[in-house]
Amino acid sequence: MKLTEVQPTAEKPAVILVRPQLAENVGTTTRAMLNCGLTELRLVAPRENWLDERAIAASSGADALLRAARRFDTTAEAIADLHRVYATTGRNRFMVKPVVTPRQAAQELRGHIAEGLRCGVLFGPERTGLENDDVALADTVITVPLNPDYCSLNLAQSVLVIAYEWFQAGSPAEPKGMTKGATPVALKEDLVGVFEHLERELDDCGFFRVAEKRPVMVRNIRNMLGRADLTQQEVRTLHGIIHELVTWRGKKGEEQSS
Amino acid sequence: MKLTEVQPTAEKPAVILVRPQLAENVGTTTRAMLNCGLTELRLVAPRENWLDERAIAASSGADALLRAARRFDTTAEAIADLHRVYATTGRNRFMVKPVVTPRQAAQELRGHIAEGLRCGVLFGPERTGLENDDVALADTVITVPLNPDYCSLNLAQSVLVIAYEWFQAGSPAEPKGMTKGATPVALKEDLVGVFEHLERELDDCGFFRVAEKRPVMVRNIRNMLGRADLTQQEVRTLHGIIHELVTWRGKKGEEQSS
Repeated sequence: MKLTEVQPTAEKPAVILVRPQLAENVGTTTRAMLNCGLTELRLVAPRENWLDERAIAASSGADALLRAARRFDTTAEAIADLHRVYATTGRNRFMVKPVVTPRQAAQELRGHIAEGLRCGVLFGPERTGLENDDVALADTVITVPLNPDYCSLNLAQSVLVIAYEWFQAGSPAEPKGMTKGATPVALKEDLVGVFEHLERELDDCGFFRVAEKRPVMVRNIRNMLGRADLTQQEVRTLHGIIHELVTWRGKKGEEQSS
Repeated sequence: MKLTEVQPTAEKPAVILVRPQLAENVGTTTRAMLNCGLTELRLVAPRENWLDERAIAASSGADALLRAARRFDTTAEAIADLHRVYATTGRNRFMVKPVVTPRQAAQELRGHIAEGLRCGVLFGPERTGLENDDVALADTVITVPLNPDYCSLNLAQSVLVIAYEWFQAGSPAEPKGMTKGATPVALKEDLVGVFEHLERELDDCGFFRVAEKRPVMVRNIRNMLGRADLTQQEVRTLHGIIHELVTWRGKKGEEQSS
């Protein structure tokens, strides 16, 4: 990727890892970031060297972000040049501060940046998360709605969720309409059953003349019939059609041999 | 967690890993699933034992899903009892099949399940992704919109994105309105500057009598002022106010000493 793409830019929020413990997690974080087009990484007092081989390996090709990362001693220094800062927290800190979801945060970040405001998102250490003093420096808290019985995202997964929502907020997509069958929808085993019935008969009658073409021909047939969104009744009908064709072929054979 | 929570249920889509290579990735997949309330895991011809110690460790407490996972020899068998199957692919397979985003898929899955249809999502092996024959068995393809210059989600990250969207689709949240400042918004360094100015003076005048209470009092003050969404002009005004109060205190001291 071009080096220009990893230079600090006011067009995207900065990802700020506060006191990350493991270099490997800094590497996987850059992988999550770059998948979603985020390129600016800031590190507050990282415990390990974010350019060591474990981090580079974990970045899986996104190491340009590691090399461009900037280190700061304190969270206050890391956010000094920003206008809007979000803090990600797993649990409620009981501070009087707005709390939003990642999706809402992504909308707000797009809005702030459209207004020319520079933004960043804080992520805490692996074990403990952000300290309250870090959260107090932020404008808004981001909490990811998760299974209340089991919330256990690792650092890179938390960054991925925020970065993913940021990227999606920039590419709104029209929801696709849902198809509905009037009669009961066929189970997959019914569908595979009629596929195999047809392919068996096509083998017998020598339809697949060129052996190496058989796999792609089978796939095309399955895709074609699969798109039909068959009902259970339609599957039965198909079995009948195949059976009739074969029987007719059998009769035809008799006629020819007679 | 209760064992009942990890029993197969028609209320949630099943996650189907096709020929996963590493047991550790199966473990991290269950961690991603449970964070988003998904509990049914199906495995098609996994290369390694999904109950070995690496998988259990990687599941990070979600191992109940590993123990409840079911193994199948083929993809067709793994989806036999489902009505609607989605296939996740990184690249375009050029099959004539509907392609949706994870968000659209989540909406459709909620819709299908509301209609009483059983659903599942296919994920391919780490290196190669799903084979075209697997994709051909699915009704719809899911492709995650990502940075076109760098698409490199690992298996558990791909599952997390789909599971995350599934969970979010069940808990719609009202977008929070965006605040806008008429005058230029203060930079964080301006804000921290006035915080420190105030706290310095409060230390001098003995406002923080109980030392152990100082940190929380400082946080509360910072949160209070931080919520004010100060402009640069307001920050200058605050500095002036603090300065005036201190000068007055100094004068007062002189009067007392005189």
